[in-house]
Amino acid sequence: MTVSPFDHPLLSSLLGDEETARHFSVEAEIAAMLAFERALAEADAENGIIGRDAAAAIVAALFSFRPDTGLLRDGVAKDGVMVPELVRQIRAAVGEPHGASVHLGATSQDVIDTALVLRLKFLVEHLGLLLTENIVRLSALDERFGGRALNGMTRMRPAIPIRVLDRVAAWLAPLLRHQQRLSDQSARLLVVQFGGAAGTLEKLGGKGPAVRAALAAKLGLADAPQWQSQRDALADFTGWLSLVTGGLGKFGQDVALMAQDGAGIELSGGGGSSAMPHKQNPVKAEALVALARFNATQLSGMHQALVHEQERSGAAWTLEWLLLPQMVVATAAALRLAAELAAQIKDLGQ
Amino acid sequence: MTVSPFDHPLLSSLLGDEETARHFSVEAEIAAMLAFERALAEADAENGIIGRDAAAAIVAALFSFRPDTGLLRDGVAKDGVMVPELVRQIRAAVGEPHGASVHLGATSQDVIDTALVLRLKFLVEHLGLLLTENIVRLSALDERFGGRALNGMTRMRPAIPIRVLDRVAAWLAPLLRHQQRLSDQSARLLVVQFGGAAGTLEKLGGKGPAVRAALAAKLGLADAPQWQSQRDALADFTGWLSLVTGGLGKFGQDVALMAQDGAGIELSGGGGSSAMPHKQNPVKAEALVALARFNATQLSGMHQALVHEQERSGAAWTLEWLLLPQMVVATAAALRLAAELAAQIKDLGQ
Amino acid sequence: MTVSPFDHPLLSSLLGDEETARHFSVEAEIAAMLAFERALAEADAENGIIGRDAAAAIVAALFSFRPDTGLLRDGVAKDGVMVPELVRQIRAAVGEPHGASVHLGATSQDVIDTALVLRLKFLVEHLGLLLTENIVRLSALDERFGGRALNGMTRMRPAIPIRVLDRVAAWLAPLLRHQQRLSDQSARLLVVQFGGAAGTLEKLGGKGPAVRAALAAKLGLADAPQWQSQRDALADFTGWLSLVTGGLGKFGQDVALMAQDGAGIELSGGGGSSAMPHKQNPVKAEALVALARFNATQLSGMHQALVHEQERSGAAWTLEWLLLPQMVVATAAALRLAAELAAQIKDLGQ
Amino acid sequence: MTVSPFDHPLLSSLLGDEETARHFSVEAEIAAMLAFERALAEADAENGIIGRDAAAAIVAALFSFRPDTGLLRDGVAKDGVMVPELVRQIRAAVGEPHGASVHLGATSQDVIDTALVLRLKFLVEHLGLLLTENIVRLSALDERFGGRALNGMTRMRPAIPIRVLDRVAAWLAPLLRHQQRLSDQSARLLVVQFGGAAGTLEKLGGKGPAVRAALAAKLGLADAPQWQSQRDALADFTGWLSLVTGGLGKFGQDVALMAQDGAGIELSGGGGSSAMPHKQNPVKAEALVALARFNATQLSGMHQALVHEQERSGAAWTLEWLLLPQMVVATAAALRLAAELAAQIKDLGQ
Repeated sequence: MTVSPFDHPLLSSLLGDEETARHFSVEAEIAAMLAFERALAEADAENGIIGRDAAAAIVAALFSFRPDTGLLRDGVAKDGVMVPELVRQIRAAVGEPHGASVHLGATSQDVIDTALVLRLKFLVEHLGLLLTENIVRLSALDERFGGRALNGMTRMRPAIPIRVLDRVAAWLAPLLRHQQRLSDQSARLLVVQFGGAAGTLEKLGGKGPAVRAALAAKLGLADAPQWQSQRDALADFTGWLSLVTGGLGKFGQDVALMAQDGAGIELSGGGGSSAMPHKQNPVKAEALVALARFNATQLSGMHQALVHEQERSGAAWTLEWLLLPQMVVATAAALRLAAELAAQIKDLGQ
Repeated sequence: MTVSPFDHPLLSSLLGDEETARHFSVEAEIAAMLAFERALAEADAENGIIGRDAAAAIVAALFSFRPDTGLLRDGVAKDGVMVPELVRQIRAAVGEPHGASVHLGATSQDVIDTALVLRLKFLVEHLGLLLTENIVRLSALDERFGGRALNGMTRMRPAIPIRVLDRVAAWLAPLLRHQQRLSDQSARLLVVQFGGAAGTLEKLGGKGPAVRAALAAKLGLADAPQWQSQRDALADFTGWLSLVTGGLGKFGQDVALMAQDGAGIELSGGGGSSAMPHKQNPVKAEALVALARFNATQLSGMHQALVHEQERSGAAWTLEWLLLPQMVVATAAALRLAAELAAQIKDLGQ
Repeated sequence: MTVSPFDHPLLSSLLGDEETARHFSVEAEIAAMLAFERALAEADAENGIIGRDAAAAIVAALFSFRPDTGLLRDGVAKDGVMVPELVRQIRAAVGEPHGASVHLGATSQDVIDTALVLRLKFLVEHLGLLLTENIVRLSALDERFGGRALNGMTRMRPAIPIRVLDRVAAWLAPLLRHQQRLSDQSARLLVVQFGGAAGTLEKLGGKGPAVRAALAAKLGLADAPQWQSQRDALADFTGWLSLVTGGLGKFGQDVALMAQDGAGIELSGGGGSSAMPHKQNPVKAEALVALARFNATQLSGMHQALVHEQERSGAAWTLEWLLLPQMVVATAAALRLAAELAAQIKDLGQ
Repeated sequence: MTVSPFDHPLLSSLLGDEETARHFSVEAEIAAMLAFERALAEADAENGIIGRDAAAAIVAALFSFRPDTGLLRDGVAKDGVMVPELVRQIRAAVGEPHGASVHLGATSQDVIDTALVLRLKFLVEHLGLLLTENIVRLSALDERFGGRALNGMTRMRPAIPIRVLDRVAAWLAPLLRHQQRLSDQSARLLVVQFGGAAGTLEKLGGKGPAVRAALAAKLGLADAPQWQSQRDALADFTGWLSLVTGGLGKFGQDVALMAQDGAGIELSGGGGSSAMPHKQNPVKAEALVALARFNATQLSGMHQALVHEQERSGAAWTLEWLLLPQMVVATAAALRLAAELAAQIKDLGQ
């Protein structure tokens, strides 16, 4: 079943991004959660919270652990999160006497948020590579066609002659700033979440910070105080995603406008029509506009979710799940499409 | 792969609705498209646009037609829609000499939009039934607990004593208005889309309106002039969806606020926590708030898509696909959750 | 001071609407509030809640009442609403022994919401007239140029020849549906709000409904149970506003796209540029797109405000004030601009 | 006339911020525009674009220049911007032979965007000071009450005991990150806009960059290539505004939730009710939630405006004017209210 085009077996070929979607699969999600539980057992053991043998038993059990997804599904319906049931299954797999040492000190949110950040770490790198590819392709357009003439258009009317490089600069320059922005915010984003029931790591006595630091190090994330009800880094990241798609939407819109009369641009491989087989539609350019407007829409909800009440809001947190993964995929898809569109430009300017 | 919780094998047990999601599956989508092509062949034949034998050959071929979804996927990547490739496959299945009679007079948008409306017809009925179920359940709460006392709360502070029926009325009365609204707008929503390449049915000579009326009748939809670039009925419908989830979000918010100290409400079967196993979280109530804020977010994009340029906007149209199905599922899920939540209320008021 | 272009002494000449803005002035707001208090005194007296002489004293005092707006301003800062201080001033103006009979049975929200609806009643009529004017003007374009040829454009590419009437129909047909929609929803919108402290009219004993009916009748509004925490009619109305501006945004976008190369349209009186004095910009067409996207943006917030907790939410209610008036003005401005733009079209089609 | 509460003579006492609103007054806007024209004349003269005597004449004329705002208003209605008419008036004031040297090389957008950035420079400083004030006040709460006990609440249910400092940290820590974010992005935001008719400074020959650098230096802004159709810095800034109000909305929401039963918090000076005079409403806390949801709503529109077509989009640019100033005022108001609310907290925790 597919409700979202990003999950759609057919539509995702245009609107999706396989690499990104894979990181939002249930398999990847559970794998990240198990990585959290493994690292936590080790960090707990290193700090004397659980025994070395308990940690070894947990690590061994996790190695071959396969969840019962039917029960996980029931767990979500009842608990709103899969973690209580997942932890129950892991504990059963570990068995006595070490089962109770699983997940020690943590709460569901620690697992879910850190499992998200672990995947975002890969995705930030993936998006960064796609960004670079776009910069390379647009720079190539600039080199190849930059000196050609183009009709400058302001307020939908012919203004004065410009050069192709002037318009390409408006597509390219924001991407360079986005690189800087991503670098600025990554240090705030790619941090561990570990707070326990209400953020105080109360089960770890004075050793909470040390366990958290060890947990972060094992997972390859930066250490930071828990942020269970402080969602600004996630909202900020989705703002970055929407800045990226917004700029690419401008690129798509500009290409589509040029494609109207075909003056000034030649595209290879446009889309066909069922009624007019020989028509060449600027499909990727239009998709860029759609994805830009999609992310601009979703971003509002991520900021609504900042009003995250008390120590944990089930409502605001669940809202993030409905928005953030799709925004990441939309951005990756837009970057992929923009690079392809740039490669489709066979001729630009006069 | 699942990017959206509505498609998520686990999260959809809380946030999804199976019946609704089934109508947004690729299978249901293609089935509705094939129903369109069959009805069109018959309507074309009845009006002498194609021969009776051509229609018979098309109907027969469609009966056993199975699309090559790999090629459909490639088609979407190239054309932005699956229809050109789907029509090509159907024509090949029909073979000579009648293949060219498939899809005669139609364009991709006719197929896609009408296939959507065909499924919305079922979904409107489904949502209507869920709405009625909620009305019944809230009325039952009213009958059972209506006379009990409750602390009226205004601006987050105790105001004066009210009765349970006063608060239940605020949950129930909007649902009755939503029934009226759905009835008001259904006649504008559940109409056929048939316009051809640019809305003029130019291939049908003077018989366009007659073919369209026959097509609509065969599909069980109302007849109406094509609305390829007039998307107000769809945007209006999503507004209705968000009105429904907004009111249910208020119900969820109220229940969650009462659940804070447990005074005035007793719920059965709340969700557990991985850190505090005996805690009872108002999971469904929170999900109602999340779904309300989700739909309120998406609605903005559906209205952005009203700026649908010229005879067909690939950008604005694609944007609808990214928003509308999820809004329908969110609404069905919210109605299901609200009915379940009402049934979980074991005690209300003092 | 002007933060919003709708209030801006200069920008409002393009983006505002004087008639509409006047109804959202402080003067109009207070006048509507005083009308509420006068009608309430009379309705209270007719039902024996207060004496006839008290009502007469209140009516007389209101006749010459002028509020101290400095104190009202302080009252808003403290109370979040102006009504407590306004009622205090009115009571002082009425003096002993009848001062305490002012506002009897009502709460601030009754005054503010009913005062809003009273003005919406005028504005619904105003918008309806502007809508009719647009229908007339677009019909005139249809009559004058309808038979001319135009290049049908789909997905930003030339499709097949159409006629001017085909494109004009896409601008005009939604407006006719909007008339029907406004008629459908007016009966739910133009109703009195009267509930008292927490919606129960507890100070009026069994006479609450009778007083409410009398109050509604005196104010020319329909009677209905209080809707202090049920905001669906307001959200639905703003959905209608955004449907209107969305359709007009499509009209503006289409005109701007035609204006690009000037083929197929000739406009009189376009805007000039400070750098290129002889350039003719399709300023009104662009403003229509901006206003459409503005309303589509705001609508999301009105639906967020449906999650109106308990008997009255200061947060959700205040949010409406920040959104609704601007949406009404944006819609009136768009209707005005669209009618002007239609009148600017000197030539259409080939 | 006042459509927006931020401009409302009464409501702005709660929802507005005088200092910020002053920078968005017409007077401040025109003053910034005149500063641009003066600095441009000087920069043009220094680079030999216009004569020294022309620059002196322009500076002298601007010193006593008072615009005819009636004509400016007409100009906006016609041109969509006030600049062509303003420049005409300035040229007339300068008179022959130097009038034609006014505005040389610039276009309307250069004036309007730079005039906005000039005011944002003050406002960034103002917001930074308000941010610091909040940090100081929340730190004081932390020092005074941090060690007290509080019921940790997760998913709207009592979780485990925490301390006041744990909850205050969730209010305070994001503000510290916001300081870093503002610092990160200021260098991209506070830059001159200067591009001429279509961004190429075509009237300045090879001296465009030198004039731009001189113009920037005179205005106290950083130099940067023109960004007429690259709006990412503005959208990013509004994202920052909404991050700030979102976090403060969480603070407000938390305070309002604590105020429900009064356990754990005591506030001085809450708001009264017209029906229940002795009630104390957490008015400022609710306003913080409303302003957070308002900015989260607006932000979507600012990102829609990133799809800024070709060399200048009247539609996308106008949309910014409808959104950005209100977001700045909402943020300043929220910061002011949050500081006041923190000061109202007389007791916190048990």
